Amino acid sequence: MLPRTYDGQRCSIARALEVLGDRWTLLVIRDAFLGVRRFDDFQRSLDVARNVLTDRLGRLVDEGILERLRYQKRPERFEYRLTEKGLDLWPVTMSLLHWGDRHYLHPDGPPRVIRHRDCGGRPTRHLICERCGAELGPQDVVAERGPGAAPAAA
Amino acid sequence: MLPRTYDGQRCSIARALEVLGDRWTLLVIRDAFLGVRRFDDFQRSLDVARNVLTDRLGRLVDEGILERLRYQKRPERFEYRLTEKGLDLWPVTMSLLHWGDRHYLHPDGPPRVIRHRDCGGRPTRHLICERCGAELGPQDVVAERGPGAAPAAA
Repeated sequence: MLPRTYDGQRCSIARALEVLGDRWTLLVIRDAFLGVRRFDDFQRSLDVARNVLTDRLGRLVDEGILERLRYQKRPERFEYRLTEKGLDLWPVTMSLLHWGDRHYLHPDGPPRVIRHRDCGGRPTRHLICERCGAELGPQDVVAERGPGAAPAAA
Repeated sequence: MLPRTYDGQRCSIARALEVLGDRWTLLVIRDAFLGVRRFDDFQRSLDVARNVLTDRLGRLVDEGILERLRYQKRPERFEYRLTEKGLDLWPVTMSLLHWGDRHYLHPDGPPRVIRHRDCGGRPTRHLICERCGAELGPQDVVAERGPGAAPAAA
């Protein structure tokens, strides 16, 4: 039952979506979980306009979801890494992946398969390893190319 | 490690976000989980322009996430309910709620508290009841006003 006040605005989901509620933002976060670190790699992966990407990366740094670290001095070059707050978004990305796999399955199968690093089991919807029962976090898994992945470059 | 092809487009997360990647869409789904059914109630809860709400509800019906059911004949009136596919989005909304509660906590506390219907325990990040250990789904929980909720109407 919904309370009569309809306090739909004061809500942690609404607050989260103020930060994340843009398709590119969540795709940048997805790429960061897959190990993308550098501007050009994000740009190539997402095929997004550079000014849009600059904006989204800047916002994610401002929100403390990504941190910008210099990895080269001359010329100066930076990379982006998920902070603890960013790593806490792992269940969001995993639940989107599960839902997409379930309801929009590519005819060849899932494009990407997540496996528990230790035993190769896959995470359940509760993010528990189906094989060994471990409660999984972002450091515990690897992403493999699945049968529905785009063909590898020659 | 990311494969060299950067197949960022063929991805279940990207596919899911094509459907959900709009703040209003996910807020409509949140409200549906909280028991909102009717156009005017969504409109009041979200404080969104009616044409935007009409568009988002229509898309969610087209995608099979909500179904539109007539509940009154004269005049005809409809309500919207989550389908099975829609109910499968529960982990997405719950993981956004957890993240928002954790990182943007209202000074008074969480605006909304989710509890296991049977025992009153709260769901962990793995959507397991912290008290009794049951694996939770959308039918197993109730949403209560938390300490950070907007004041109740007189």
